Amino acid sequence: MSSSTGRLFRITTWGESHGGGVGVVVDGCPPRIAISLEQIQLELDRRRPGQSSIVTQRKESDTVDILSGVLDGLSLGTPISMVVRNEDQRSRDYDEMRDKYRPSHADYAYDEKYGIRAWSGGGRSSARETVGRVAAGAVAKAILSRFGVEIVGYVEKVHHILASVDPNTVSMVDVESNVVRCPDPQKAEEILTHIEAIRKEGNSIGGIVGCVARGVPAGWGEPVFDKLEADLGKAVLSLPACKGFEIGAGFGLTDLTGLQANDEFEADENGVVRTRSNNSGGVQGGISNGMPIVIRAAFKPTATIMMEQHTVTTEHNNTTIKGRGRHDPCVLPRAVPMVEAMVAIVLADHALRQSAMLCGTST
Amino acid sequence: MSSSTGRLFRITTWGESHGGGVGVVVDGCPPRIAISLEQIQLELDRRRPGQSSIVTQRKESDTVDILSGVLDGLSLGTPISMVVRNEDQRSRDYDEMRDKYRPSHADYAYDEKYGIRAWSGGGRSSARETVGRVAAGAVAKAILSRFGVEIVGYVEKVHHILASVDPNTVSMVDVESNVVRCPDPQKAEEILTHIEAIRKEGNSIGGIVGCVARGVPAGWGEPVFDKLEADLGKAVLSLPACKGFEIGAGFGLTDLTGLQANDEFEADENGVVRTRSNNSGGVQGGISNGMPIVIRAAFKPTATIMMEQHTVTTEHNNTTIKGRGRHDPCVLPRAVPMVEAMVAIVLADHALRQSAMLCGTST
Amino acid sequence: MSSSTGRLFRITTWGESHGGGVGVVVDGCPPRIAISLEQIQLELDRRRPGQSSIVTQRKESDTVDILSGVLDGLSLGTPISMVVRNEDQRSRDYDEMRDKYRPSHADYAYDEKYGIRAWSGGGRSSARETVGRVAAGAVAKAILSRFGVEIVGYVEKVHHILASVDPNTVSMVDVESNVVRCPDPQKAEEILTHIEAIRKEGNSIGGIVGCVARGVPAGWGEPVFDKLEADLGKAVLSLPACKGFEIGAGFGLTDLTGLQANDEFEADENGVVRTRSNNSGGVQGGISNGMPIVIRAAFKPTATIMMEQHTVTTEHNNTTIKGRGRHDPCVLPRAVPMVEAMVAIVLADHALRQSAMLCGTST
Amino acid sequence: MSSSTGRLFRITTWGESHGGGVGVVVDGCPPRIAISLEQIQLELDRRRPGQSSIVTQRKESDTVDILSGVLDGLSLGTPISMVVRNEDQRSRDYDEMRDKYRPSHADYAYDEKYGIRAWSGGGRSSARETVGRVAAGAVAKAILSRFGVEIVGYVEKVHHILASVDPNTVSMVDVESNVVRCPDPQKAEEILTHIEAIRKEGNSIGGIVGCVARGVPAGWGEPVFDKLEADLGKAVLSLPACKGFEIGAGFGLTDLTGLQANDEFEADENGVVRTRSNNSGGVQGGISNGMPIVIRAAFKPTATIMMEQHTVTTEHNNTTIKGRGRHDPCVLPRAVPMVEAMVAIVLADHALRQSAMLCGTST
Repeated sequence: MSSSTGRLFRITTWGESHGGGVGVVVDGCPPRIAISLEQIQLELDRRRPGQSSIVTQRKESDTVDILSGVLDGLSLGTPISMVVRNEDQRSRDYDEMRDKYRPSHADYAYDEKYGIRAWSGGGRSSARETVGRVAAGAVAKAILSRFGVEIVGYVEKVHHILASVDPNTVSMVDVESNVVRCPDPQKAEEILTHIEAIRKEGNSIGGIVGCVARGVPAGWGEPVFDKLEADLGKAVLSLPACKGFEIGAGFGLTDLTGLQANDEFEADENGVVRTRSNNSGGVQGGISNGMPIVIRAAFKPTATIMMEQHTVTTEHNNTTIKGRGRHDPCVLPRAVPMVEAMVAIVLADHALRQSAMLCGTST
Repeated sequence: MSSSTGRLFRITTWGESHGGGVGVVVDGCPPRIAISLEQIQLELDRRRPGQSSIVTQRKESDTVDILSGVLDGLSLGTPISMVVRNEDQRSRDYDEMRDKYRPSHADYAYDEKYGIRAWSGGGRSSARETVGRVAAGAVAKAILSRFGVEIVGYVEKVHHILASVDPNTVSMVDVESNVVRCPDPQKAEEILTHIEAIRKEGNSIGGIVGCVARGVPAGWGEPVFDKLEADLGKAVLSLPACKGFEIGAGFGLTDLTGLQANDEFEADENGVVRTRSNNSGGVQGGISNGMPIVIRAAFKPTATIMMEQHTVTTEHNNTTIKGRGRHDPCVLPRAVPMVEAMVAIVLADHALRQSAMLCGTST
Repeated sequence: MSSSTGRLFRITTWGESHGGGVGVVVDGCPPRIAISLEQIQLELDRRRPGQSSIVTQRKESDTVDILSGVLDGLSLGTPISMVVRNEDQRSRDYDEMRDKYRPSHADYAYDEKYGIRAWSGGGRSSARETVGRVAAGAVAKAILSRFGVEIVGYVEKVHHILASVDPNTVSMVDVESNVVRCPDPQKAEEILTHIEAIRKEGNSIGGIVGCVARGVPAGWGEPVFDKLEADLGKAVLSLPACKGFEIGAGFGLTDLTGLQANDEFEADENGVVRTRSNNSGGVQGGISNGMPIVIRAAFKPTATIMMEQHTVTTEHNNTTIKGRGRHDPCVLPRAVPMVEAMVAIVLADHALRQSAMLCGTST
Repeated sequence: MSSSTGRLFRITTWGESHGGGVGVVVDGCPPRIAISLEQIQLELDRRRPGQSSIVTQRKESDTVDILSGVLDGLSLGTPISMVVRNEDQRSRDYDEMRDKYRPSHADYAYDEKYGIRAWSGGGRSSARETVGRVAAGAVAKAILSRFGVEIVGYVEKVHHILASVDPNTVSMVDVESNVVRCPDPQKAEEILTHIEAIRKEGNSIGGIVGCVARGVPAGWGEPVFDKLEADLGKAVLSLPACKGFEIGAGFGLTDLTGLQANDEFEADENGVVRTRSNNSGGVQGGISNGMPIVIRAAFKPTATIMMEQHTVTTEHNNTTIKGRGRHDPCVLPRAVPMVEAMVAIVLADHALRQSAMLCGTST
């Protein structure tokens, strides 16, 4: 009972990694939004396996079908149902998973929770579930473009390699200029080499995805429980392998004093207010202040590695396991469109919420 | 429309810092849970202003009244309404806030959102709002005690001072042994001295609160959007001044390889499964695995400082502002019961959700 | 976990009949709405016991306190918490209820559900719970007045006496012209006499409350599950003693053919569209069509009567019971403000939802 | 944003009448429930066009595909996605609907709400949307069968013909013994003849569907807003063409006194409690009391008739319209499985809610 998220812009994903397919129902998209099948497919292609040498080589075209909610390229205001059929399923690669729990995977926890498990392909815990998120994120971006909001995600760190990225200027073009999706070309090169080396040894690594939303007007978000950082945090932390989240200077704020950390306000000659620094990451008191919203998400190394590890059987006997099949040595390049999608979904929801809140104030 | 949280164990807080009072309605508490007014008051006393020399000296007794939902010390299964009256309101201290936006505070964002603002005392963005959370957290802890779940929060870092805490053994007694709420006695001493110094210069500092939940059975939590780390992250990030969250090894996982990061399973002679390490922080695939759940929350320095800073007026003219009144130089000691409360609220909700999920499986 | 309702305009009621008090938290009221304590009190006075000779003579002043969310007569956009203290509690009248289940009351069902019960005063199943609804309804009406929406409830039938009411013209003044709240003066007289007679014999009766909302623009409501009649039906059927609901010609539509039942459209010279009849009750496909929204609610006779009836003890032994205390022989006059409140709450919610749905369409 | 319903057993339908298809995602089905494709198809066949001479002759096989959430005939606890492809779409029949609003249809209201409309086939307001509900209802019935709950719907009245049905004994076999789905064989015959006659003249009629749920244990349902009659009322009133709802004796209760209406309790020698009458329809205080739950739903005559009627164009000019195409002269026979589905969906949700409420009470 947890496959939906959002209050007004609400998405429901479904589907196991091996099975009929995966998909999403987007409910709450306002009417008369331009919805482009090509745009949605493009986002899915950024998430797709096999897109480069450093990601999993599973062969999935991930071709999306829009089954409802769109007429002649415009949203109807009714649910948009999108489906991607599963294609490349090698259950054989997963035979061992039937009887053994993979370390740091969801297998054991699922069995303890449900007493049943779609062992082949990882079922619902597979990153394949994010297909629906990315498709829904493309719809969210279409809504946000009405407000002039632009979202750019990027790889900021892989293992020990830290890139230099300016969230105020980084562009989608910079990000897509290399298969790593790191807008710092030199570090991108280093990262590429490092991922290749890690893959060869059968190991894996993680890293940090950064993401900026520019053009968000002041006033989005909510006080108390649905603060913008809280909703963004939840959305991003719900991605597979994500174990940390921060906004603005985040954990780094604990090293500063108030005098250093505070974002002083200043007004220009037209009375437009901005802050001199952006340690708050564009959000104060849970509400956007008009500055770029900047977040950071930590992804752990891919759990499946081609090296032997201790584990237990489903009968709770000690044994060992060694990964097989086609897996990402580093999820970061494919995580970029996922993070962007989650940020877009949260912001679209808050755009609608702010419209509701202003209900009738101009009538 | 954001003052409620939780799916089944659902709380709604209300109240401005200056006004009639603050409170909470807890809906979804199962019937026949032992609810102790003393226990709730005790948690509120841990959050209360004036409890020690290093926190704000506002004089609020924070005496809680239970108005409904409890009969003869037992919950009825109906909403539990709890109220704390406001007492010590010095509006005069806030006069300047009527016309000037405090840097890194919510004032500006609120005005942009609502076009109206309870300027005195910070209104709803005041940390006083957390009174309702902490009271609700005490109810959540009462539910969790049925399952043998124990929650301990602690100060792990203040400014540059990092304490050493073992989440597997740390106890409430350790934490409450000093006013800093840091279970590392030596570091607690250092932190105390440092906070005093910072207060004297009119500056402020932040830090990290850690929290562990021990005794959570495997199987709580949900796949996809309501992963345990996602719900915990949202809950904790919704606390005032919190700007970062991580679970298990969190951001530190990005420095490891998969071989280093993975938590290998092992079974003892009774077939009881545990992991050799706990980098996952007790959660895999969004679901608890029976190991201690360990999280960490970053709090920025208190925004209000007694030093002059640039800002703008509500008319958007440049000016300066200098804090007045009685403020915490460091929120960390008082943040400990807040973090515990949010963790308890999330876990109680998931305890109920798991019960629902198992619906009828034993009939 | 069911004491909240509404999606965006969301209310949470709390409180037992005997206990600290009853109240409501209204979350989602837009900012800068004029909130008048007098107006809220006036609605509560229409619901209050002891207001006339034909209702219960319990002595409750039902004085409301607004504890948050309102500043200088304007809503802040934050939760509005309202409390009414309990005053006149004669537990003695309820002694028998501790051990015997009252026929057609909630006692037995509560015990089966919760295993614990606030037996004194009926606890949460008492009509006293509706205090919070009526207070919230007054806030909803304040929002709706921005849109020119007017809501008028009235007694349409009591036992076998059926009044004649024109929903297109009936006014609050007509309704409040007599203690029965029936705008048909002659029938009001008859009803008054009949209720007095029923009371004297210790029996009770029910009837039908009608309610019209005029001025609702076309386009409010939702297709599929949250159709306007579905949300109105749920809201009204959630009132104590309500066992039937219909919209427009309702059950009477089953006696007509399509040719008779259909509401033909017509446009005036200005292109303003209306329907020639209003059998649909202002709602088609779940969405308002600009015509008056007309609903009808059936209330059963008050369950507590001063006559002996068969029942069982809490130990499941057969026995008899005879009501005591101060009860309404007919709830209809006091049900009118309750029905109005529920209609207002639903419409305010859909007003906000429609605002959200139009998000950004004019930017 | 209204295509989902249910709190824990939660369904989301999608799809326009003409378009890629219609479907549903069922989230919150407990794991290890036996899910039979045949059983789901059987329910859909009861709803299907063309199943008999008295329903619409559109040719839709309505073959359902289960795309996720089920493994080897057992639910996984993850979302169950079901899809039915659209087949027989004669857009030509709807050409006139592009420019003219059909009386008592949703066309006008949709245009006012959304400013865009899937005119062909009625889009989302078509009864075709209920495919997803009926498929989800089959899953709900599978859950309920664990508790021994049995749901039987039936046609109780068509136009002026009223059947005699005993809700305590009526069986699915009785209902399915004729195409009218009326378990009173003589009245079924009369109704059949009458529908044929009405169809010949191009007119339409409505009626009442009754439904009973037997075997529901005492204690399901909630006080206050989610009373069982409120949730059932909302669910049933959300069906296309439904304009009235009652539970137990419903509107008829207004003709009785308390003495006549009250359901006296009695206990048998084993201490099993039941009521002597069932005017409450199995629900008291919003909570089931162990007696059969009996409800009644009023359906208006089909809006589309083959006779000329006044209406307006989308440009708001007066004109006339005459229905074409293949429509039900009376929706009642096909409404029976829809009502059953909605009752099942509500009860399954409350079964899960009761499990959650009892959380930990037995540990």
